[in-house]
Amino acid sequence: MNTQAEIDDFVLNGHLYYIPHVSLDCAIFGYHDQQLKLLLIKHKAIDGWCLPGGYIKRTEKLVEAANRNVKERTGIDNLFLQQFKTFGDPNRARMDEFDEEKWFEATGIRITKDNWLIDQTISIGFYAITDFSKTELQKDMLIEDCAWFDINELPKLEFDHDEMVSEALHAMRVQLYHYPIGINMLPEKFTLSEIHALYETLLGKKLDVSNFPKKLIALGLLKKLDEKRSIGAHRSPHLYVFDKEKYSQALKDGVVLS
Amino acid sequence: MNTQAEIDDFVLNGHLYYIPHVSLDCAIFGYHDQQLKLLLIKHKAIDGWCLPGGYIKRTEKLVEAANRNVKERTGIDNLFLQQFKTFGDPNRARMDEFDEEKWFEATGIRITKDNWLIDQTISIGFYAITDFSKTELQKDMLIEDCAWFDINELPKLEFDHDEMVSEALHAMRVQLYHYPIGINMLPEKFTLSEIHALYETLLGKKLDVSNFPKKLIALGLLKKLDEKRSIGAHRSPHLYVFDKEKYSQALKDGVVLS
Repeated sequence: MNTQAEIDDFVLNGHLYYIPHVSLDCAIFGYHDQQLKLLLIKHKAIDGWCLPGGYIKRTEKLVEAANRNVKERTGIDNLFLQQFKTFGDPNRARMDEFDEEKWFEATGIRITKDNWLIDQTISIGFYAITDFSKTELQKDMLIEDCAWFDINELPKLEFDHDEMVSEALHAMRVQLYHYPIGINMLPEKFTLSEIHALYETLLGKKLDVSNFPKKLIALGLLKKLDEKRSIGAHRSPHLYVFDKEKYSQALKDGVVLS
Repeated sequence: MNTQAEIDDFVLNGHLYYIPHVSLDCAIFGYHDQQLKLLLIKHKAIDGWCLPGGYIKRTEKLVEAANRNVKERTGIDNLFLQQFKTFGDPNRARMDEFDEEKWFEATGIRITKDNWLIDQTISIGFYAITDFSKTELQKDMLIEDCAWFDINELPKLEFDHDEMVSEALHAMRVQLYHYPIGINMLPEKFTLSEIHALYETLLGKKLDVSNFPKKLIALGLLKKLDEKRSIGAHRSPHLYVFDKEKYSQALKDGVVLS
């Protein structure tokens, strides 16, 4: 939200064009050069760091709402977004801890107890993976800060977002065995070592050399090019590309990679 | 719901103790003797068959709400319930097709346009697997019929429930590779052939003989007993049991079975 009028309208009339009681939160993982990071934001009305998220327009599909949220923060459109879990513990966001003054200071508008934003909300978790070196993080009037954090050095998050991150990581790691996730994290042409390093970093563990790439080749998802990269004397590994058609099909249907 | 007073209270005051705009639907799979079935219900105010489902109490965790719903229909408590996807397409349940008269006839109470039940709803999908021969199906005042259908002979379902079933089956089949699902579908002591048949039926495809059971043994999830079952001359296969502690841990953490 970029103007005071937009904020006022959201607070006062948001229930008319968003679905009340339902929000979404996005765990956006960023990969680059064997590093795995997570995107966090700091909302002006909330003390600590959170996952980016928002509400769902009544005219939107859930994944469209997630895409809109991710695009607003990262500038990236059409990331592969995957629902991982919906969170609805009655204690997940305690409204008795809602700080009215801090909210007013941050937003310039007072919320009354009967406002649509002050009620129990369930939240749908999505995760995405992108190359963090290609993103352009964007703040808005309600967001004080927005940054990539190393996955092993995350601060304590607000609400139930620590649990969300842990569930998102778990779901992503299970799904790595069933969906090819990687097309937007590697150069267009890459070596087997590069894709191996990607999988090791995402899974957070050492893998049998070339196990994953071998499966990807066997499934026809990777194509070997008649082209090598020269990285030193006697070292010129073959380059590979994804078969985009088979990749899209596998993303839709799932495969067994392990 | 078993009395008219309960129905009236649900329609008129339900928004006070349930979360509005959010429902859940349960794909309850039933296995027995190499058959896979799905539980469907026919609501008195709706023409066709649907998945059983309901609303979430403001004091309940999501899985508790799903458990309550499943128990109400099957009489079975504490089934392993797994969220598989949340559905929020704006066209998923078209309220312009809501039949006011049919609703009145079925429930004995009129719903006005501003009622909490008449608004866009997102629905959280859970699946469960049980032994259908052990269930006792239960109807209530709003449910005309409740029955097991062979997974290959399902009727066309109402709303977006065909999509839900297909997503639930897909999620269950992917998760079979990562979670031991089976403890409530086999006798306490079982043969490797029995567990093999279970996995084949759930996956809907032939498997390499003993591939899954082998992995389960390697992971310590299955324990071989010093006991055999006599099923004919020269045929007395060993019996196995699940290691309940490791089984619970694997359900929590996930493993790689494939």
